[in-house]
Order: sequence, then C-alpha cells, then structure tokens
Amino acid sequence: MIVADNPDFRFALLATDGAARRGRVHTGRGPIDTPAFMPVGTAGTVKGLLTDQVRATGSQILLGNAYHLMLRPGAERVAALGGLHAFMNWDGPILTDSGGYQVLSLAGLRRLDDDGVTFRSHIDGAYHRLTPASSVEVQELLDADITMVLDECPPYPCDHDNAERSLDLTLRWAQRSKDAFHGRPGFGLFGIVQGGVHPDLREASARRLVDIGFHGYALGGLAVGEPAAERNAALEVTTPALPADRPRYLMGVGKPLDLVEAVERGIDLFDCVLPTRSGRRGLAYTWDGAVKLTNARFRDDPEPLDPTSDCPASRDYSKAYLHHLFKAGEVLGWTLLTWHNVHFYQQLMGAMRTAIETGRLKDFAADFRNRQVG
Amino acid sequence: MIVADNPDFRFALLATDGAARRGRVHTGRGPIDTPAFMPVGTAGTVKGLLTDQVRATGSQILLGNAYHLMLRPGAERVAALGGLHAFMNWDGPILTDSGGYQVLSLAGLRRLDDDGVTFRSHIDGAYHRLTPASSVEVQELLDADITMVLDECPPYPCDHDNAERSLDLTLRWAQRSKDAFHGRPGFGLFGIVQGGVHPDLREASARRLVDIGFHGYALGGLAVGEPAAERNAALEVTTPALPADRPRYLMGVGKPLDLVEAVERGIDLFDCVLPTRSGRRGLAYTWDGAVKLTNARFRDDPEPLDPTSDCPASRDYSKAYLHHLFKAGEVLGWTLLTWHNVHFYQQLMGAMRTAIETGRLKDFAADFRNRQVG
Repeated sequence: MIVADNPDFRFALLATDGAARRGRVHTGRGPIDTPAFMPVGTAGTVKGLLTDQVRATGSQILLGNAYHLMLRPGAERVAALGGLHAFMNWDGPILTDSGGYQVLSLAGLRRLDDDGVTFRSHIDGAYHRLTPASSVEVQELLDADITMVLDECPPYPCDHDNAERSLDLTLRWAQRSKDAFHGRPGFGLFGIVQGGVHPDLREASARRLVDIGFHGYALGGLAVGEPAAERNAALEVTTPALPADRPRYLMGVGKPLDLVEAVERGIDLFDCVLPTRSGRRGLAYTWDGAVKLTNARFRDDPEPLDPTSDCPASRDYSKAYLHHLFKAGEVLGWTLLTWHNVHFYQQLMGAMRTAIETGRLKDFAADFRNRQVG
Repeated sequence: MIVADNPDFRFALLATDGAARRGRVHTGRGPIDTPAFMPVGTAGTVKGLLTDQVRATGSQILLGNAYHLMLRPGAERVAALGGLHAFMNWDGPILTDSGGYQVLSLAGLRRLDDDGVTFRSHIDGAYHRLTPASSVEVQELLDADITMVLDECPPYPCDHDNAERSLDLTLRWAQRSKDAFHGRPGFGLFGIVQGGVHPDLREASARRLVDIGFHGYALGGLAVGEPAAERNAALEVTTPALPADRPRYLMGVGKPLDLVEAVERGIDLFDCVLPTRSGRRGLAYTWDGAVKLTNARFRDDPEPLDPTSDCPASRDYSKAYLHHLFKAGEVLGWTLLTWHNVHFYQQLMGAMRTAIETGRLKDFAADFRNRQVG
C-alpha cells in the first residue's frame, strides 16, 4: 500500500453515526476536519474572495484546477513562482483535479485514445495533450497536496456497455497515475470510482481501485444530470466497498441538501461551484432554503441574511443593500454573496460534524430537509 | 455666517508650507485629516471593496453620488433603511455630490432652466427633476455629512460669455441651496466655484460664494479636459480668494502628480475615480509611476507591488499573480488593484501631510515628480 510509505498523509476516523463518518485528513499543510467542503478555486482564485476571507469561513482546503492552470498561467510558471499556494496566497492544503472533466466539458476538438487525450485549449485553440502521467506531473508542479488521477467521466445517461468500456480505461489510467506519482511525505493521491449509475460497475470500480491502492477514493461521474435517487443509490453501493481508513470524496456535489444526503451515506469530502457561482448570480443559501436576492421583495428589507452569523457578509449588510448591489451590477454583491454562501456551506459541514459526534445526524438531516423545502 | 450656527462642523488649520495647508475637518462623524483623498462610492459602494478594506487604507471620508442614488435605489428608500452610512456599512463621514455633473454627463434628454434641470434617467428613461432645493433634500435624505450645492458645470472649452452666464446661474443656485439646507450640528454645506479657466470669473465666483457663506468651498468645472497648466492657473487665482478657515475641495482630480500640484496650491480635499477605475483596468499607481499589470513583462514577476506596504493587496500577491488574474478576467484582480490604488493614494496624502508639517513639501514634490516620470 502506498500509504505505508507516507505516514504524514493519513485519515483518522474519529466517530461514526450510521454510515456517516466524522474524521480528519492529515496532510503536510495541516488537517482537514471531515465531513469537509472544499471551495472551488478554478484558476487560482476562489472567484471574488480573498484567501483571508475564505479562511475566515472555516475552509481548511481549496480545490484547484489542473486543466485551467496548465493552460493559464501554465504549471511550470506556477512552479517557478513557488507553487500554487504561494501564487494564490493560501498556505493550507489544496486538492487539484486532474483536468479530465474539463477536457470533456470545456475544451474544443479532442481525441481520446488509450494513452490520454489530445485537445485544443478553450482559451487560444492551442493543442495540448494530457496523459495519466502528465496530469500527475502538472499537479505536482502546482504542488497539490492531494492529486487526482486522470479519469474519463462518461456523460449521463451512459449505457452499461459504454460505462464499462470507459471504466476499464479509467482503471488502466488509475494504475498509470499511481506509477507516475512521487509519494512525498504529506502528499496524497486519490483514485476515482466511475461506472455511471450502474451498481455492479460502481462496486467493481471501487474494488479494483482499492486493489491498486490510494490515499483516498473519489466518486466521479455524478452530479452530471442524474436524479438524486440514482446518485444516492450509487453512493450506497460504493461506500461499503471502500476501506474505512481512507477518505471518500464525492466530486462536484452539490446543493446543501445533497451534501447532507451524501454525508448520511458515508462521504467525507465535497467540492462544488454552487456556493460561489450562485453567489455571483444573486442566490444565497440559508438554513431556510435558497433566497434569490434580486427578487423585488427584498428591495426594502433592512434585515441581513443572518444577524447571528460571525461572517461579516451575512451579518453586516441588509438584504435591501445586497438587492441594490445586484440591481446596480456592483461587483461587491458577488463578493458578499459568495462569502456568505461559502460560510454557510462551512456552517453546514460544522453542524454535521457535531451531529455525527453526538449521534444525532438522522434528526439533524430531518430538520434540515424540512426547513430547506419549507 | 452659517458656521456660527454649527460649531460641530469646522476646519482647523494646523500648519502651512507655502500655499499648502495641513488641517483637519471636524464633522459629526469624525475628523478628516487634510490634505485628504475621498474614495468614490458612486452607487453606495467603492467598487469592489468592502468598507473594512477602504477603512484599512486610512480613508476617513467617502464620496457618494446623489444622482445615482436618487435614481437607484432612491433617496427615500435609503433614508428608510437608516441613511447611506447604515446602508453601505460605513460609519465615517460621507460627502455627496449634488447630481449636477452626472445629469450633464450621464442623463439622456435634459432641459436646463433657471430653476433646475429636468432629465431622463440613464437607467430606465424615467423623467426626474433636480433643483437646488431638491438636490439638498436628496442629500439630506442620504444623510450626507457634507452636502454640495447644485451647480452647472460648463464643458471645456467654454468661452468667457458662456462661462459667465453659467456662473451666474450657479451662484443663484448656490444661494437657493443654502436657503434649503438644514444646518444640523456636525453637517456642512459646500459651495462650488465655477468660471471655467477664466481667471477673472474664478476669482469673482470665489468672492461671491464667500459672501453667501459656506462651510467649505469646492472648485468645480476642472478635470474636464483642460491642460494641467490651465488648471493650476485657475487654482492659483482661486485659493487666495477663499477664507483660510474653510476647507477647499478640488472636485474630480486626479492623477497622483495632479494631487501634489494642487496641494502645493492650497487644496485640502480631493475625490477621483482614477484609483478605483484604473484598478479595474489593471493599472497600479506606485511611487515609481503607473504600472500596467496586463503587460507581458509581469507574467513571471514574483515581486509584489510593494513588499513594505501594510496593505495586503500591495504586499501579499506577486505581480505575476495580478497579471494572471487580469488575463483570466478574475474579479479578484479588480479588488486587489483597487485596494492597492486607494491605499497608495492614502499613503501619498499621508506623506504630503507629513511634508507640510515639517516644511518639506517643495522637496517632496520635486522628488515625487522625478520618480513619477522616471
């Protein structure tokens, strides 16, 4: 097992509550209390926020994006400037995704073969090639604390045959990624479970990845349009096939209630663009559901989003002011709602960690569900 | 004199150096050390910055905009929400301009008459009317600490006859503005000197305004395209005609060197969109001149804009990172450069205050000029 060579990167399971887990990922750049949410810093910035503001939300780890950063400003350039942490002024852990998902969703003309993918940059049309080894290399140049293997993420829906074919490729690439990874102390490599929404493939994918051996296991190919029930079913067959002493990361999920349902099914780590992207669109997540601040009913509302919050964005600005900022196209509106949303996500994760510790997650989830839809 | 009724709003002249003045404007919401720069918060926000960040630059007073705020969200609405200070989360003094300048520069279809101006909103085309009295009323609804009289700002160039005609109107409006102003303790009303670049009109304007009597005197109608030499000449004939015990405010000026040259000619207060607007365009002001961060030569520059600064934006991010943010269209670039620029402007004002106190402004200005053009 790779982990035997790397005791500085490990997962401590502190408590369980049903399938839910309260844990801590130890990395060379500090711990991550789980269940944890990773704000997305695609191009070396959590859009609209200073890293001090991100830190103030309680975020312990950020997500960076190998695809975006290799195209601009370039992984070698980031390395020469001291790595992604120095570049973006964030000294905590960073997880980078491999670039596979973005090649499929953003890049122009692309050609997939057994060894990797050739594609044209969505920025300038230049040709690039990404292989399992080169993706790991890019992520090591960025100095990612957690490197993700290159995978193929099939679309939804994807029939069993195609999902199986894709999964075989992904598993071969997982082995090559591991072969390319330099196991420095404190740094981890995560495999990615694929298999669409086919239970047998999900389970097989998990088992074969565990045979290869990684520091953690991600669930990819979800949050791509499938119904929540199918996603939850996929989680339920996958997490039991994963080792208890490794963190489990559900990629790209999701809305607040999605996070709760995934934590109930044994997920430890999340990333999602929703709190940041929705913040730029005037949508605030709250304990009582999502609130569209551009709605005229907030025009004269003197109340802040949460007067009891320790987040300035939630506490110190009225909904009327936030409404005004969005109506006037003022960028401060983006910043304030992004900050509020990331802070809310971290409050939610903290509440779930406490609920698991005290064996009350089921009640918490029921209450949360009622308030979110109410 | 209006000031006799309002001892809580006053100007203390602390030191002089040639024509330059080191002073302090006392307002009901705190003091303003002069020479002072007021960041522009047009629509209830200094674009891209939290008020905490603005405060951290050393800014003691902000400028708000009656025209923008009366159109959106509406002065009555701001008043109902507790005034502009509560609305935008800024507890220091605010100066609002009267709206006259924006009616001329932004509004559609407008008709000027002896009593005011009728115009169509640039936002939704609705008709509005602004008179000297209604402008004062709007600014009082906003709860401005310093209210500006409604004036007519002639374009540049403007011949003597037209400048004189415009000036007569402005002076009649100044009296009406004063008649409409409620002299609450701690709140001030400023008159505006016009007269184009015609020395006799500038001087006459100043004298006639002083006869009416205001808490402070602004110089309007400059920074509208005239050469710096003509602007400086206008300052030189105007400031001697203004009382020593009232603050002098040069509206809309300017670049760092413009500020130095105006301080040398006895100006105390400034506002300008340049540090904020240029920040959004990738231009940083520094002791060694303006720096265009989008330039390719900064792509690999690991140095921050100012490693010795106490402003995080100037100190904690490399030029390469700032370059990247602008190339990637990331809004954090706006925030960081705006923050840096406002902080630099405040450093410059602080340095001038110290230079005046120690009788060294002439040397300071010479050094500054050399470095700016070098």
